Order: sequence, then structure tokens, then C-alpha cells
Amino acid sequence: MADTVKNLASYAEALARRAHRAAAALRAARAEQKDAALRAIADRLRAEQDAILAANCRDLARADEFGLTPAQVDRLRLSPDRIEAMARGVEAIVALPDPVGEVIDEYIRDDGLQIRRVRVPLGVVLFIYESRPNVTVDAVALCLKSGNAVILRGGKEAAYTNDVLHRLMVQEIERAGLPADAAVRVDIQDRELVGELLQCDRYIDLAIPRGGEGLIRRVVQQARMPVLKHYKGLCHVYVDRAADLTMARRIVVNAKCQRPGVCNAAETVLVHEAVADRFLPGLLEELFARGVEIRGCERTRQFDRRVLPATEADFSTEWLDLKLSMRVVRSLEEAIEHIARYGSGHTEAIVTDDPHAAEQFLTMVDSATVMHNASTRLCDGGEFGLGAEIGISTDKLHARGPCGLRELTTYKYVVRGSGHIR
Amino acid sequence: MADTVKNLASYAEALARRAHRAAAALRAARAEQKDAALRAIADRLRAEQDAILAANCRDLARADEFGLTPAQVDRLRLSPDRIEAMARGVEAIVALPDPVGEVIDEYIRDDGLQIRRVRVPLGVVLFIYESRPNVTVDAVALCLKSGNAVILRGGKEAAYTNDVLHRLMVQEIERAGLPADAAVRVDIQDRELVGELLQCDRYIDLAIPRGGEGLIRRVVQQARMPVLKHYKGLCHVYVDRAADLTMARRIVVNAKCQRPGVCNAAETVLVHEAVADRFLPGLLEELFARGVEIRGCERTRQFDRRVLPATEADFSTEWLDLKLSMRVVRSLEEAIEHIARYGSGHTEAIVTDDPHAAEQFLTMVDSATVMHNASTRLCDGGEFGLGAEIGISTDKLHARGPCGLRELTTYKYVVRGSGHIR
Repeated sequence: MADTVKNLASYAEALARRAHRAAAALRAARAEQKDAALRAIADRLRAEQDAILAANCRDLARADEFGLTPAQVDRLRLSPDRIEAMARGVEAIVALPDPVGEVIDEYIRDDGLQIRRVRVPLGVVLFIYESRPNVTVDAVALCLKSGNAVILRGGKEAAYTNDVLHRLMVQEIERAGLPADAAVRVDIQDRELVGELLQCDRYIDLAIPRGGEGLIRRVVQQARMPVLKHYKGLCHVYVDRAADLTMARRIVVNAKCQRPGVCNAAETVLVHEAVADRFLPGLLEELFARGVEIRGCERTRQFDRRVLPATEADFSTEWLDLKLSMRVVRSLEEAIEHIARYGSGHTEAIVTDDPHAAEQFLTMVDSATVMHNASTRLCDGGEFGLGAEIGISTDKLHARGPCGLRELTTYKYVVRGSGHIR
Repeated sequence: MADTVKNLASYAEALARRAHRAAAALRAARAEQKDAALRAIADRLRAEQDAILAANCRDLARADEFGLTPAQVDRLRLSPDRIEAMARGVEAIVALPDPVGEVIDEYIRDDGLQIRRVRVPLGVVLFIYESRPNVTVDAVALCLKSGNAVILRGGKEAAYTNDVLHRLMVQEIERAGLPADAAVRVDIQDRELVGELLQCDRYIDLAIPRGGEGLIRRVVQQARMPVLKHYKGLCHVYVDRAADLTMARRIVVNAKCQRPGVCNAAETVLVHEAVADRFLPGLLEELFARGVEIRGCERTRQFDRRVLPATEADFSTEWLDLKLSMRVVRSLEEAIEHIARYGSGHTEAIVTDDPHAAEQFLTMVDSATVMHNASTRLCDGGEFGLGAEIGISTDKLHARGPCGLRELTTYKYVVRGSGHIR
């Protein structure tokens, strides 16, 4: 055992060093070179469709063994259409401007000293994720374009698919004159190895875990480097006393039902008591018709006894399912307090025609994304025009909300003088 | 003991909650209100000069008891001039634009959805620092202007002075209609209490330690919230083969001697072998004349036997004194490798007239600040035009280099629609 741990530790460090060396070369890579590699990757994905599908079949054949749910199997499964979508995703990243080298600000002092803040890559990103194979391609493309080396640690359920995708991407990266270790894949499925990688803060600059809350908490606990993440997306929609109730109903239904299993779906709806009588009966009818299970406060239950009584724990639960918590509040302030207490800092929306209520909500709710008269489902890198996203952050430092290329960079101060001293 | 710890834990949480509540009010404070408070603080500092000096005398009287060095006593000592400088520092912060509410970018989709990134305060900053009393005033002014509440934990050596400064600032903050708990002072000198505060990540958004490396490592180890810091400033000056040697000598002497006890002073000088013969004898003569102790590689020692032999450990040492490590290198690449191996990621400078060498150095050296033909001493919030600085970061995430008002903020996505759904 002691030997295994020592071997794992040195294996992890060797992987991390390889990526670290690649990162030094990527720091100076030109935009054209990176874009050429990405274009070649897109073409290669299309050309190798059969090989990718064959590997995917091998993963699908093991799905029962790993006990995947039908939803998980569906996320794992590739098709010609899904491979085409991956290739287009890479081309969309090619089309984005290179963030590296951007002069964020510049200041020239009276004595001629030039001070610039220049955008530079972070270095090495450790990306830990589950199931969907397209995430492998997105992560490599985003990291390469932003000049970072990436260490990929995907789930065992997609091991064959990820292996093929990784190999063909690395070949194209090398062919473009960039280091093969720009994308290092962790090919041993061992949780201890992840633990060891998370100790390598000398070589790895950032860890990004994407998956269930358990995975993310484990990563945060073990990591010595910074972690970009959200634990959960417990998103709220607040229907104000001055809401357009038709709009409110459309937004609530969309936020809960359009895709209930994702982090930006609504989990709790708060309704101002002044509109509860007019709003709730119709809303509840529609939600029940759509198969939503509802847990509500006593006031909510008075409108429909199919509403189950909500407990404290229900208001802290990210359902990720056709389930919804509901509460009638006496004021905008009570809604803001409820969100401060139970929210996860991800995305919250207010529906109102009162501009003052909207401003108060947008200012006082301390979440990564706050919305007025729009569905929480719209909080997404693609919808926000970032291109693909590497994740969504509920942290306050560095990056908040959907994270794209810019969030995979840092800056340095570059100072040019002509003998300036102090 | 168990009781004490429990009491300390609940005392720490109570302090943190007070600041957290104040932060909610500060989030909506107007720029004029914050500036009015700051202007009143500046006036009050001048008006209370006698009381401040009296408290400072009480601290100075205990300096022996705490074993302060003459340099530390000098940093602790206030004078009418130093109080005037504090007041002017606050007025300089008033003159800076309010960072809160700045629209960082804006994007309006074809369907009319408006997506903005808006600068907002972080919330609560825990500031842990040593000795100089003007830092107390700077920290409160920077945090207030950026809309953050601050918890101040200064050193025991300055307890009386900090107490007076804190009390008069809080009075002016309240008088301006802002919450008194915008600046909470930790008035118990207990290291355990700091440990408990560092557990309060629910209420404290960021910890900033300023002081010795030991203090900072302790804070990083204990903190559950992010920490903005640098461990040390092991800054390098590299004199290239194409350097203007007169300029190089002026820069090296300035970087080492102008104020050797600070983080942006140079600790190691690297010299290209092609210019060692012409450069080193004169430089060594001047440095010895200025009382600098030099530890050099074998090549350096050949020029002057007063140079002590440098060990591996010397190249990893932040001298903070009139001491300097020195090494002759064979190439620019060797200089870059030396910096990657021994540097602290703070500030490094190249002296050269070769623009290609300069570009390579500025690109490949992965430090917060990289400089061409300028002294490392110029890496400073004031010199960079940020106004005062709350610290200098060698982290890569969130903020790098000198940190001012902007670095005390985060952003949120503010989305405005008219019933937009997905």
C-alpha cells in the first residue's frame, strides 16, 4: 500500500510536470498555430466518425456494469449528429478572438514609464468531469485556444470514447507544431491518483471539477491549488406583486420544465402574497399537468391539496428533477432574505413590471447571475455569447457565472522603461 | 480550554456576522455617501492629531516589551507629517472613481435580451496585518470606497494607535449614514481568535494577510475562504548581453539599495557572461561601497574575493536587507530557467537594448510583474496609478500584482429581458 501511494504520487507528479512543460511552450504559441490545430481537430472528428462510434459502443456495452441510469446512458451515447455538433463546437471556438496578449489596460506615466496589464494563460488546468464525451473536446479546445495545457480526468463510463477523442486531438496538436502534452489524459481510473494530482500545486494552476456535489466537495477538500466550481444551482424565481402574471407563468414553467436536470433550472418559486390568489391556481394546474411534484408552504397548499407540505430541507434541495419548492412571501424583502438563506449564489430571477423592485432585487441578491423578466435557464455560456463554457462559477474571486476563454486566463503587468528607477 | 475555544468560535462568528450585515447595506451605498465619509475621516485625522500621537506614544512605550527592532519602531512611530500623509492618502482614494456599478461589458442579443457584467463589492474582507498604523487607515478607506465591510486584525504592537484610528473612522462612517460595522476591529489579541475567524467562510469573502511569511502561511493553511497574498518577493534583475551597462548599474543599485527591506527590492542579480568582465568589477565596487553583502557563484567571485560563495539556499532567500545573491549565466534562457526555479512570481526585470531578448523575457517569465529597463522597486500600487494598494498578489487567480480598489470587487451578470425563455 505504501508503495502504491508512493508510485501514484510520483506518477501524478510526472503527469503534472509534462503538462507544466507544455504550458511554457503554449505561453508563446501564436493564435494562427492554435487555430490551425483546432480546425484540424474539427476535420479529424468528422473523418474518424466510425472509430469514435465504435469506441462509444464499447462504453455503452459496459453501461449496465456501471449501473448508469437511462438519462446517463443517453448523455454518454454519440451519434453522427452529435459528432458533427462537437466539430462545430470546436469551429465556434476557432471563430472567437484569441484572449492571450490582449492589452487590458495601459497607462503611460508623465516620465514615460509604460505600464500595461496583458492577458496571459493560467498555465495548467486540471479538469475532472463525468460522462458526456463532448465535454472532453470542449475542454481541450477551450484550454488550447486560451494557451493552457489541460490534464483530463474523465469518468470511467466514457473511457473508450475519451481515449479515441484524446488520441486524435493530440495528433493534430502535434502536427500543428504544438506540444503533445498540451492535453494530458489520466488513463488510470484511480481515485487516489486524483488525490495526488490535487497536491501538485507547483505544476497545476487551477482545478475545475464538473459533476455531482460529492465529487466537487472532494476536490475542494483535497486541492492545494485554486478550484473553480459551483456546488449546486439552487435557482429561484420570485414573482413580484407587480408581475405580468402571464409572463411570470411562462417563465416559471420554462425555468422548471424545459430541462429540469441542469444547474440553471429553477428549484424554488417565491410568490408575493398580493398576487397569490390570481397567480397560483393556474400555475399549479399547469405544473401538475406537466407532471411536476410540488412542495409548498401552508399558504400555497391552500390553493391545491395536491401540494405536499414543504420542510426546511426542501428549500435547501436542488431537485434536478420535475420537483419544485414553493413559498408565498409577504414582501420583496422577504424574498431577498429567503434567497440569501437558502440560495446557492448561482442564478435568481425576478418577474415584475416595477423598475424599483427590479433594481432592488438585482442589487441586493448576491448571486453570480441576477435576472429581470427572464428564465434562469438562460444563464449559460452559449446564451451569454461566450462560445462554449468550461463551467459555471459561484465563487466570487477570479470568475463568476459562466466561464469561457477569458476566465481561463490571468494577466501580468508588463512594464517598459528606459532606465527608470525609484 | 474547550469552553474558551467555544467562546472564541462564537465571538468570531458574531464579529463576522456583524460585518456581513454591514456589507449588505454597503452593497447599495451611493458613491457620494462613501466619499463624504472618507472626506470626513481625512479631516478628523487632522483634527485629532494630538489624541493619535498620545496613543502612539503608549504603543512606543511598550516597544521594548515586544522586542521590536529599531526599524520596526520607526515604522510604528507617527508624527504630524505622517498623520498628514495618512489624511492625504484617504483624500487620494476619494479622488478615484467608484468601482462599484461599473458596466464591464454589455451584450444585447438579437432577441433583445440585455446581458451586462457589472462590478460589485466582494462583501467582507478580513485584513490581518502587522505594525504600521497607516495601513489601518488605508485598508478602511479602500474597503469602504469599494463597498466592502472590513474586519481589521492589526498587530498588538500598534494596539493603542489602531484603536484610536478605528474609533474615529467608525464615528465618521456612522455620521455619513453608513453602518458602523463597515469597519469591525478585532480587539482581542489572541491567535486562536484569528483561526476561528478564518473558519467563517459563510460570512467572510476574502482574507488578506500582510506581514512575514510565517504569518501568511498560517493564514493560508487555516483559511476556508480565498486568500489574497504573496509569500515573499524574491525579485530578480537580469543584465543581458545587450544591456546598456550604465543603465544596468543604476537599476541594480536602485533595486537593491533604495529600500532593501521591502518586497519589491531585488534579491538576486543575474549577469550574462558576455558582459561580466565589463560590468561586474564596477558594480561590485559600488555595492561594497554601499555596504551590501554579496553572495555569488564561482564566476562572480573571480572578480572580487570579498564576494562570499553562494549556496543553493542563498538563491532561495529573500534577504530584505543589504544583501544580494549574484550569478553569471551563459544565456537568456538560463536566466529564465533560474527565475522559474528560484523566483517567487513577484517582479523580475531585464536590462537590455535588444528588443527580441526583452520580448522573450517578458513573455516567458511567469511573474505578476515583468519589467524592461526599469527597477523592480517601481512595482507598487501608487507607482502604477492605482492609488493606495491593499497588497501585492503573486496568485494567478482573481488578482495579480499590486491590488487596489478594482481588485476588491467582483462582478455579477445582470440580465434584463421582457419575458425571455429558452
